[in-house]
Amino acid sequence: MTKPKVLTVSELSERVGGRVVGDGNVEIQSVADLEAATEGEIAYVEDEKLFAAAKSSRASCVIVAVAAAIDSPCRIEVAKPKLAFALIAEVLHPQKRREPLIDPTAAIAQTADVALTTFVGPHVAIGENSRVGVGTQILAGASIGDNVVVGSECVIHPNVVIYDNVMIGDRVILHAGVVIGADGFGYVRDNQSHHKFPQIGTVVIEDDVELGANTCVDRGALGRTRIGRGTKLDNLVHVGHNCDIGERVVIAGQTGISGSVLIEDDCIIGGQVGFGDHIRVQSGAVIGSKAGVLPGKIVRPGVWWGIPIQPLDEYKRLNAHVGRLPRMREEQKELNERVKKLEAALLQGKK
Amino acid sequence: MTKPKVLTVSELSERVGGRVVGDGNVEIQSVADLEAATEGEIAYVEDEKLFAAAKSSRASCVIVAVAAAIDSPCRIEVAKPKLAFALIAEVLHPQKRREPLIDPTAAIAQTADVALTTFVGPHVAIGENSRVGVGTQILAGASIGDNVVVGSECVIHPNVVIYDNVMIGDRVILHAGVVIGADGFGYVRDNQSHHKFPQIGTVVIEDDVELGANTCVDRGALGRTRIGRGTKLDNLVHVGHNCDIGERVVIAGQTGISGSVLIEDDCIIGGQVGFGDHIRVQSGAVIGSKAGVLPGKIVRPGVWWGIPIQPLDEYKRLNAHVGRLPRMREEQKELNERVKKLEAALLQGKK
Amino acid sequence: MTKPKVLTVSELSERVGGRVVGDGNVEIQSVADLEAATEGEIAYVEDEKLFAAAKSSRASCVIVAVAAAIDSPCRIEVAKPKLAFALIAEVLHPQKRREPLIDPTAAIAQTADVALTTFVGPHVAIGENSRVGVGTQILAGASIGDNVVVGSECVIHPNVVIYDNVMIGDRVILHAGVVIGADGFGYVRDNQSHHKFPQIGTVVIEDDVELGANTCVDRGALGRTRIGRGTKLDNLVHVGHNCDIGERVVIAGQTGISGSVLIEDDCIIGGQVGFGDHIRVQSGAVIGSKAGVLPGKIVRPGVWWGIPIQPLDEYKRLNAHVGRLPRMREEQKELNERVKKLEAALLQGKK
Repeated sequence: MTKPKVLTVSELSERVGGRVVGDGNVEIQSVADLEAATEGEIAYVEDEKLFAAAKSSRASCVIVAVAAAIDSPCRIEVAKPKLAFALIAEVLHPQKRREPLIDPTAAIAQTADVALTTFVGPHVAIGENSRVGVGTQILAGASIGDNVVVGSECVIHPNVVIYDNVMIGDRVILHAGVVIGADGFGYVRDNQSHHKFPQIGTVVIEDDVELGANTCVDRGALGRTRIGRGTKLDNLVHVGHNCDIGERVVIAGQTGISGSVLIEDDCIIGGQVGFGDHIRVQSGAVIGSKAGVLPGKIVRPGVWWGIPIQPLDEYKRLNAHVGRLPRMREEQKELNERVKKLEAALLQGKK
Repeated sequence: MTKPKVLTVSELSERVGGRVVGDGNVEIQSVADLEAATEGEIAYVEDEKLFAAAKSSRASCVIVAVAAAIDSPCRIEVAKPKLAFALIAEVLHPQKRREPLIDPTAAIAQTADVALTTFVGPHVAIGENSRVGVGTQILAGASIGDNVVVGSECVIHPNVVIYDNVMIGDRVILHAGVVIGADGFGYVRDNQSHHKFPQIGTVVIEDDVELGANTCVDRGALGRTRIGRGTKLDNLVHVGHNCDIGERVVIAGQTGISGSVLIEDDCIIGGQVGFGDHIRVQSGAVIGSKAGVLPGKIVRPGVWWGIPIQPLDEYKRLNAHVGRLPRMREEQKELNERVKKLEAALLQGKK
Repeated sequence: MTKPKVLTVSELSERVGGRVVGDGNVEIQSVADLEAATEGEIAYVEDEKLFAAAKSSRASCVIVAVAAAIDSPCRIEVAKPKLAFALIAEVLHPQKRREPLIDPTAAIAQTADVALTTFVGPHVAIGENSRVGVGTQILAGASIGDNVVVGSECVIHPNVVIYDNVMIGDRVILHAGVVIGADGFGYVRDNQSHHKFPQIGTVVIEDDVELGANTCVDRGALGRTRIGRGTKLDNLVHVGHNCDIGERVVIAGQTGISGSVLIEDDCIIGGQVGFGDHIRVQSGAVIGSKAGVLPGKIVRPGVWWGIPIQPLDEYKRLNAHVGRLPRMREEQKELNERVKKLEAALLQGKK
């Protein structure tokens, strides 16, 4: 294991624009959870409910909000403790570096252009005319097709598959089992069988994208499928052909996106959501887990929920109404009885 | 990259039984989207809404319906433009061919029988007594177990895994990460633990099947799991043990099928659908995305939707009723008030 | 293929504490389905509906319940026929053994400690300081990171990926494409971008766990993700960071579990279920397929269903009410008419 970095509280505080309260010379070598933290570790607290835990934490330093009523002996005060914690973790636990190396078992086409500072692990395959940028790590068993461009400082985890003619930006992380550029799912039926609609487009993965394990991004049928800069997808997500996912979008696990869906910048999509084709999700929309969006729909900014999606408020309201149905039914029966009595009384009166 | 094929409009028209209007000698080397198409490219139009776009397209040729009111200078008239487009794409963009080759890094058992015209990529493993047919391509990192039969003209994409004793037909395409023949999910509980129900059956994938990336087809527990001829599955689909999927079935992404489900020929299944076990879906049934089908159910021909599935019409009607619930509740309250008044009036009258 | 084991009915009966009726010397070499079974095969019957099939079965022996009214000429009577069948299958069809071997194409770090009796298939990668126990099989293309511990008698199927610093117990089965220890899905947003929340924890997979093909278990953010002893997950399941899944839990295909979910011992979870984060599922809970559980929820013992989950009884009741909505609406209209008439009559009477 690589030797841990050690920095002082003052050094860390400086990195996140914080203010040290207590001894700035305390040495820190790891981030940790508030409860599990011990000597040499730094934790954070944001939620007021955890202030008591923060006080009893054995962490050497706690990151707290500027105004927080916490009197830990050594702390860093910042505007956003959780963000500062993440930034400090980047410093203390940098992504694993590997020395430049081409493993002798790797199969690299002679026409491929692999930067000198690349790490290429065992049993990697890189096809004709493909290029790999500086500082990129391609781990065991990953397979890169022909005419692929992989940028610099990427991490391509084991057994990732990148089909031909795909472009991957810089600092992209593809977790194990990711498949980029498989054929989209499109067929034209004649009487006898299904003919493949051409799937000859490409995929563009922009800078700083991270894709979770076993996630699949299909190639465009004729054009391209795009995952925008800084966008993060969880595990087992399916992105269909010709989708255009904007920048800084977050999509949780097992969500499925049919062909030609446009998701604009900064949207947040829950897990197990299903999208029909040709949907447009406008920037700022938030779609809750397990929601279903019908084909062709335009999803405006706001929070959406349900199958098919509705504004969250409406969804909750309808759900409450459904929950009240048994009572409503009782009331209706009772009303019916009362009306019957009234009718009988009226009939009586007429006699 | 392989040099593009070039054919004339007349030659292409002949392939699809079309009629050329304009100069049949125009040369075409690629299919393209109507809007993106440029010189040397052929597009198609079927939807009337796009007729204007077709007129302004810079495509060298447009495929149109016989009666369509489009006066593009060079066009092919056919009965089904989209189908003709797919067929022409097959001609202009044939599946990538690879010269017969056994990569030196491949690990092939001595008892395996691999046809001379097969392409076996780097780091492929092929087990004992397995056979691979003529013209098949097995790409980097794919793993084929013992006693497996893979037919001719197949494409087994990188990192596909085929377990022992599985049969794959001809012209089958398995996209990256597909797993065929893993153990089905069946256990028998005793007091202490779960014992595996035997998972010793097989899988049969018939001719012309295509399976999307990371899709899993489990082996039969005692019998077999079958995917019928010409059936197409999208990415991340789960097919449980002993399922029998018929011919020309289409199943979209992330659908999950429990054990012993029978889906007859020509069914269409949306994405993220869930099937309980021992279901029978009759030929001609269409099941909408995100639907849920209860165990043991027989699904008749027609369009089905919802959890649990209902006929689409009924599903829409019930959904409309649920949407009207707030109004219904208001009306009920109002009725209650009116009945109260009537009761009071009657009481008054009796006095 | 390995030569099949052959045992007599008496020997098999002894293994499961049964009582032989008929000729105990009959030789059995395979388990089989009741309908497909033929000479030399043993089947079981538990469901009374299949008693007729049992009588006409050509199986050499049938396993039946002690009191069952079945007069097959050769049978084993036990308390739990299906369980006995599974146990007998374990004897007749033991897991495939492979002779100890390190395939010459495997890439094993010099500091790795691989037991002498291990089978390491082609193109396997094992990282620095990792340990693999006795009798374990690591099949083609599997990738094991640095500082990983894999116990004894495990089967790691082809193209499995295990990230650094993960612990795998004994007798664990990981099916093809499984990914253990990828980064959890956690980011902290600042104005410009998403910063990764540290994902530096670990994963612990305890003894006798089986994970289905392409299932993903993320590493803990700061602590660990745990899959308890004897727990079984189906294909394409997603387990988020810091989940704690207890012992003997069963989770069906495509279920997704967000971060920090606690599922206690002996729970049963259907397929395509979705869990928000920080849920606690208490021991004995059963959650039906396609259910959705809201973040932070405590799920008590019992059977749960729906989105969001409700007790099954309540779910059914509400569903029935929803199905009755059209009729309710009619009744309300009718009530309205009757009240109108009453109002008119009263008005009339007052004149």
